[in-house]
Amino acid sequence: MEPFNPAFQTELERLFRVRRDVRRFRRDPVPEPLLREVLEAAHLAPSVGLSQPWRCVRVKERALRQAVREDFARCNQAAASSYADGRLEAYGALKLAGLEDAPEHLLVCCERDPAQGHGLGRRTQPQTARDSAVGAIQLLWLAARAKGLGLGWVSILEPSGLQARFDLPESWDWVAYLCLGWPESEASVPELETLGWERRRPLDAVLFER
Amino acid sequence: MEPFNPAFQTELERLFRVRRDVRRFRRDPVPEPLLREVLEAAHLAPSVGLSQPWRCVRVKERALRQAVREDFARCNQAAASSYADGRLEAYGALKLAGLEDAPEHLLVCCERDPAQGHGLGRRTQPQTARDSAVGAIQLLWLAARAKGLGLGWVSILEPSGLQARFDLPESWDWVAYLCLGWPESEASVPELETLGWERRRPLDAVLFER
Repeated sequence: MEPFNPAFQTELERLFRVRRDVRRFRRDPVPEPLLREVLEAAHLAPSVGLSQPWRCVRVKERALRQAVREDFARCNQAAASSYADGRLEAYGALKLAGLEDAPEHLLVCCERDPAQGHGLGRRTQPQTARDSAVGAIQLLWLAARAKGLGLGWVSILEPSGLQARFDLPESWDWVAYLCLGWPESEASVPELETLGWERRRPLDAVLFER
Repeated sequence: MEPFNPAFQTELERLFRVRRDVRRFRRDPVPEPLLREVLEAAHLAPSVGLSQPWRCVRVKERALRQAVREDFARCNQAAASSYADGRLEAYGALKLAGLEDAPEHLLVCCERDPAQGHGLGRRTQPQTARDSAVGAIQLLWLAARAKGLGLGWVSILEPSGLQARFDLPESWDWVAYLCLGWPESEASVPELETLGWERRRPLDAVLFER
């Protein structure tokens, strides 16, 4: 099997390096064909038993978007109140979601027990259905960045409360609420690092041997 | 922010398209510098709160690898017995792991409640720690394939029984057992599809709007 050419490999590493979790968007719309392309790319993800359990909901209703923003404000306030002193101040300075400006909102769910795939690979590790959806999001992230778009994953939300608002099948689990659009700027360092919240550790800190 | 050049975008899509879950490996070793490169690539993954909660265990002990192979054989037998008739026959024809031949075995875990990141983003959705590790695996998959290597995720294992054998911190959750090495051949279609187990559905089957 042939490796990809070295120039591609170098650019792929650069893509991994400059891909950011984006929270600052311009309001310009994402053209429909471009949106389709990044969704098609995500749909090429591997999945347990070829079950393709991801479900992608394009969120357009104003009332739904508003409900998400309100839930974020509430959860973010609750999270802030768990910090004290300097850490509380630092938390307050962070921008943790681009829900106001991002032109596209996507809710990714997973079918908990998909018929597709005939259960293969999920008997001992059922969480691999969700893992498959997470893998697809990772491809969406890369495909978007390659096209000049940015993606942000908003986890400061309470799915249990919000899910009913979306009128989704009971068999779907909430995986991720995503903002997609044109980033205001480019950065090779995560904003959480730039703003002093946390710093990245080297690979050796997470490598072990048995 | 500049998009990547169109030639790169085309090759990136090809990478997504030919990336396979590999279960048939040649036994040739993976050079250490190459292994390091793909692990460094995975370590560029996004993580909730910049917590980098993935932990990667390179599995070298023969006894551990043997325990994993035995657990796979047991779980695979149990899974097979849940099918009947033609489906049982089809299951028996599948090769679902490359544990015998793959030169490298990696166990990826996640730190369930990492101190790094100061809890940011995990208050309402603690499973995002595991999601971060899954995202890193997705980058490992792509980086490996770009270099001519193949990765296979073996989910037909019972983590609860195996984990003790690895003598891991209690705070780690098992995420994925991975085989890494040189694929025997190239394929643009998943083997589960070629062998008639399941077929991929088009994007529109998983797209919704609210």
